[in-house]
Formats: sequence, structure tokens, C-alpha cells
Amino acid sequence: MNAEIIAVGSELLTPQRVDTNSLWLTDQLNALGVEVTAKTIVGDHRERLAEAVRAACARSELVILTGGLGPTEDDVTRDAVAAALDRTQQFRQDICDAIDQRFRRSNRVMAEINKRQAFVLEGAEALPNPNGTAPGQWVQDGGRAVVLLPGPPNEMQPLFVKECLPRLQRMLPPQVIRTRSYRVALMAESEVDQRIAPVYTKYANPATTILAAAGDIQIHLRARCAAEADAESLLAEVGGQIEALLGDWIYSRNLDPLEVVIGCALRARSQTLSVAESCTGGLLAQRITSVPGASDYFLGGFLTYSNRMKTELLGVPEDLLREHTAVSEPVAEAMARGARLRTGSTYALSVTGIAGPGGATEAIPVGAVFAGLAGPQTCRIRRAHFLGDRDRVRALASQLALDMLRRELAGL
Amino acid sequence: MNAEIIAVGSELLTPQRVDTNSLWLTDQLNALGVEVTAKTIVGDHRERLAEAVRAACARSELVILTGGLGPTEDDVTRDAVAAALDRTQQFRQDICDAIDQRFRRSNRVMAEINKRQAFVLEGAEALPNPNGTAPGQWVQDGGRAVVLLPGPPNEMQPLFVKECLPRLQRMLPPQVIRTRSYRVALMAESEVDQRIAPVYTKYANPATTILAAAGDIQIHLRARCAAEADAESLLAEVGGQIEALLGDWIYSRNLDPLEVVIGCALRARSQTLSVAESCTGGLLAQRITSVPGASDYFLGGFLTYSNRMKTELLGVPEDLLREHTAVSEPVAEAMARGARLRTGSTYALSVTGIAGPGGATEAIPVGAVFAGLAGPQTCRIRRAHFLGDRDRVRALASQLALDMLRRELAGL
Repeated sequence: MNAEIIAVGSELLTPQRVDTNSLWLTDQLNALGVEVTAKTIVGDHRERLAEAVRAACARSELVILTGGLGPTEDDVTRDAVAAALDRTQQFRQDICDAIDQRFRRSNRVMAEINKRQAFVLEGAEALPNPNGTAPGQWVQDGGRAVVLLPGPPNEMQPLFVKECLPRLQRMLPPQVIRTRSYRVALMAESEVDQRIAPVYTKYANPATTILAAAGDIQIHLRARCAAEADAESLLAEVGGQIEALLGDWIYSRNLDPLEVVIGCALRARSQTLSVAESCTGGLLAQRITSVPGASDYFLGGFLTYSNRMKTELLGVPEDLLREHTAVSEPVAEAMARGARLRTGSTYALSVTGIAGPGGATEAIPVGAVFAGLAGPQTCRIRRAHFLGDRDRVRALASQLALDMLRRELAGL
Repeated sequence: MNAEIIAVGSELLTPQRVDTNSLWLTDQLNALGVEVTAKTIVGDHRERLAEAVRAACARSELVILTGGLGPTEDDVTRDAVAAALDRTQQFRQDICDAIDQRFRRSNRVMAEINKRQAFVLEGAEALPNPNGTAPGQWVQDGGRAVVLLPGPPNEMQPLFVKECLPRLQRMLPPQVIRTRSYRVALMAESEVDQRIAPVYTKYANPATTILAAAGDIQIHLRARCAAEADAESLLAEVGGQIEALLGDWIYSRNLDPLEVVIGCALRARSQTLSVAESCTGGLLAQRITSVPGASDYFLGGFLTYSNRMKTELLGVPEDLLREHTAVSEPVAEAMARGARLRTGSTYALSVTGIAGPGGATEAIPVGAVFAGLAGPQTCRIRRAHFLGDRDRVRALASQLALDMLRRELAGL
């Protein structure tokens, strides 16, 4: 089966914005064995969009549109697809009521224009959208499916998984796809690749994909077979070799990020955590608390951006700051110890560094970071010098701190 | 003049790669007053690409293709455009010699397949490529131009600037583009639209685009005129009406996010800020400190995820927590006052709420948030009930707190 993706929105035709929904969708479709043969980006323009839909329908068995389902005049996807497929639209009171309820729950009143979102193409199935007002639509047109999805990723992705995947699986020949994934912290992509390429390049099945973010590499293996046992055995064969080559650099075998891995370990041991952040300014705690239920093990912590706060809130001695400066091993240690003492947590993580672009001194360059971990037995420090802009240095600094704790909890 | 961009390459149809050449090209074209009305991404497939070129030529006066000019079998752009425009291709010895020279300069021998790159469409001008072997091509087809550009940005961009910009300028009437932008916090997209649609829908020029994120709406106006004064006057006319309709909901007139707006205001007044975060768990401070130089006004703060931390670190009375629970107006107030007192900052922001998915009680649903602002004169509280997942509730909660401070600093 071939698929095309049409991204709708004039903002996607500006120099600032790129369509990223299609990347996620392509990944989902490829996993089903569906190839994406073209992508089109069209502005909020009814006739141009209708023509793009007609052309896509003439070529492909699956046409997915994202965006343009909002309530405003410039949301033209419903009308354009109706025109392209020559179908009428029907007002659905039940959908209108659901939108109205959604507004009421947040003590707002549904605007008259939101009623537009309650129109569904003749013969189409409405796909409930738990995270937004615009429902998706599935239009079966002979052997071809045209699917309308909302543009915001937090609405589109769960809707696709819940409503579209099962429908697509029913349309496709039976095939088993099994995946295995690894995550590696703080190793360069080129280094990961150099280690494992001799293994994965030998195998077309499973297919291997490597995705890199700041200090975080994902390795995906995807085996496709007629039988599940064959797929699992291929994954075990290739995965086993990769695990041997990367060893304890692998922190996750199920795509859980570091903050989930350390959260599970802390919960299992009924231990608690606090933080003391300087250059990361809340990012470390934000990651830890992005995990639902983090209150089981995360007590809280201190944002000590200024030296005075390091002294007053954490008890870092003033002469230590004077002698070593705030970005130093002794200060990272004093911050971690201070946070642990003041919160009573089992562990405390600290981060201090120069995120840039300003703040560098002759002795301490932009990107210099110290992370500390205070625990019941000991206090460890790791230092690093990260390259990149402010966002990247901060992301890597939080990764450094979490990986320290991960290794401690795993007894490494 | 309308333009379309066609990016050629099967790698651009994988989940990992996105076409970014078109962003740079769009910026160049917009500056000339040329609007990009569609973008298409096609794999290395001759017939599909030829069809895409035919379709684009039927709609647009300028069609730019990037990629697929290499020497190998899967580089199909020349052949596909020749087929679409029904033109032959001619071998050009001078281009072949230039490619050969290029290889010799790096002590290599030109491969036989590189001769493919010396074929030029009947009637086309070859565009010299100083950074690669593949020349570009400019095909004038009546009033329409079809332009073939190499894919690597370091080849495409200088070639476009040197060869294409002058040709386009000769084709176009003199024109200037001026833009104006607004940002609005915590108003629903439909509400913004309902207020301002009566204005902007009356004007095709300037063109209006509305972009929505969690609790943050951007409004972009783009005016195109022959004279700069006319463009500015159109922006003033439409912008003035929009400003009147949205009033102090507008927090930025230059696309600065809230954290930059409050940072500038604090710096200008030499005032300082601290935070006390519960449900946002560091996100609020992370946003504040994402701005370079935030240390000028941000002192630090407290992450008080547990009730005990609220009491011990911020001095929130235990009986207040017992009586009202942690997600309440009195606790938000006590948190803000406690942070201000303990850091000595001019202002302190607090956030407490239920980010979900767990943690709701009968009295307090998921999404309930209280934000507090303690200042020299007074302490204010705002409450809200946000819908959406954990990430969205936390994003909106941080927005609520920052907007409170923005309004306070603006004397609203």
C-alpha cells in the first residue's frame, strides 16, 4: 500500500515552519509496511487543497491530511476534501454537544464558529479527539481511504494510534512487526555508530534506525516476518550483539527516557530525590516531574541561580565560592550535600555550569558543567565540557546529572 | 508571482529527514514579494516527479526543484523535467570539461557516470555551480520559469543568490514586504479569531496568519506594496484595529515570548524575581532562565513538590495545608510570600495545581491551577482550570504565572 501525506496550513509555507507531523506519521506507516511516496504542503486555500487531494487520490490508496480542522474561516480541510470527493457535509449534533461540553468543563462558552467543527463528510466516520475540539474523519472511498487529522501533534498522534492504526491493520495483509529499542546517554552518535555498524549493516531485516538528540541516542530495530517467532529470534540475534557492544551505556531497553528510568528505580527502593540547580535553572526538576506520579519519590529542591542563593538556601560557604567560583567541583558537591541535608532526601543531584552565551571566564569556558550526586554513602562529581548553544548545554547538563543517578541506582 | 518548490529525494520521505532547503528558498522568495503556494516532496521516481512538475507548471509561474541532479541512476530530476516539459536534452562538452577539471583539481579522475551531469534541457540556460559538479538549469517556458537546483545547501544557496535572484528581479515588479506581529497569552484561538476576524477578513493585503500553541497565540500581518510607506500604512491601519480589539491581552509586538517580556521589564526596573513551584516542577524557572542573561534579575527559588517541602522550605503553615489542601488559593499565596521573604526578591511567583493524570480529588479536578504573585505592595492570586494532558496543563500553568507578572509590571 502506498500513502501520501498532505500537510495543510499557510504557516507551513513560511520560512519559519516545517511540517514535522509527516515524520511521525511516516514512522507509523513504515512500521505497518506502508510506504510514503509523496508529501505535499498546501496553504489554507480551498481550491488548491481540493486539487491536491484529487491528485493524491488518483495515485495513492491512502491519503492522510493533517491540519486545517480548526473553527476559523481559514480552516478549509473539511470543505476541500468534500469538494475533491464530491461529497456533502452533515451537521452532527452529538459532536457539537461534545465540543460544547469541552468548553463548559473549562468554564468557557463555545463560540458560534466552533459549530463548523461538528460537520462530517457524507459517509465518513468521525474519529473522537480527546485532546481537542476538532474530531478527525475517516472517509472510505472504494478501496481508498482519505483521513483527516488535526494538526497539533498532541491531538494528532493519540488520535492516529487509537483510531487509524486498527483500521489500517484491518486493510493490510497479515504481517508481524516486532521492535526492540535501546537508549544510550552521553555517547556521541558517531561513536555509537562506529561501535554497532559492523553488526547492523549485515542485516536488512531487522531494519536499524539511529536517532540522535542532545546526549541521547535511540537505536530502533524493526523485524518484519510472517511469523512472530521469526521476528523475535531476529531481534534477539541482532539485539544481543548490540547489547554486548554498548554494555552499560544502554540505559533503557523500552524507550523510557532517563527521568522514567531513575523514577522507577527510586520508587522500587522507596527512596527519595531532591535537586539543587544553577545553570539548568529548573530544567532538571522539570524533566524529573514530567513523569506522572513523580511525587512518590521527588521531594523538591532549590533553584540557586545567584551565589547568594547558593549560600543562603543551600549553605554553600562563601569562601568556597570565592576561592573556587560557582562553577567548580567543590561547589557542585556543597550544593548536592546542602540539598540532601535540607530536604532529607535519600539522594540529591546538583548542577552548576556556564550555559552561555555570556558568563565565560578565562578559566571556565561556556559549556563547562559540574554535576554532583550526594547519597547515603558518598558524594560523586562528574565534570563535562559540552559544545553547543544555551539550550543544548542545559539539556546535556540535565542528562549528565540524571545519568549519574541512573548509574548509582544500578550499582554501576 | 506564485512559486512552488519541489524537493526531490527518497531520503526526504523517511521518518528521519525533513526538507529544509525550502525554508531558505521561501525566505529568499518572500523578500522578492513572491509567495510560495505549495511544496511537494517526491522520491527518486521519474514518472512521479514528472507528474509533479506538470501539475506545478499548470498552477504556478515559478517552479523550483531541489535535488536529484547527481550522477547516479537514482538522480532523475533532469529526465523528469525534460519529460514534463516535452524537451530533449543536449550534451554540453563545455560543462563536461568543467566537471572534468573539477575532478582533476582534487587529483581524482572523473567517472563515466558524471557525464550525465553535462546534459542540459533544450533551450535551458546552465547555471554554474562553483561548489559542486552538478550545474543548475533555468528553463524559460513562456512566462513560466522552471529552475533546477542542486540539493546540498552549500551548493544550492550561493547558486541561487548569484544566478537566480538577478533573473527573478528582472521578471518582477518592484515591491516591498513589511510585517507586524502580536502575541496573546491565555486566550483561546477561537476567541482571538472571533474578535479580530471582522477586521482581518476585510483585507487581502496585509495577509493575516494566526498560529496557536498552548495558551499562546501569534498573529502575523504581512503587507506587500510597491512603496514602503504604503506597506507601513496598511500595517498601521489593520494593526491599529487589532490592537484596539485585543487590548492588554497582547503581550508582545515583536514575537518575544513572555519570559523575554518579563525579563526586559525586570531588568529595566532593576527588580528581581524568585519562584516557588509545585505542579510545574521547575518548568516555570526553566522558561525564565532559558533567556540569556536571566541572572540579571532571576535569583532562584524553590521546588516544593511535597507538602513537607512547602512547610519546611517556604514556611507554608501545616494547618493551612490541612484545611485548604495544597492546591488552594491560601497555599498559593503562602508559597509566593514565602519565596519572596526567603530570597529577598522584588517579586515571587508561585504555582500549585494538579497536572494529572493522577492526583485529582472530588473537590479538585485535574487541570486546576492556582498561581500567586507576591510583590512589594500586594499579593495576587489567579486560578484556572486547564484541559489537556500533563504537559499541556504544566505549560499553561507556567503561562498563567508569567502573564500575571507581565500584567503587574505593565501596571495593568
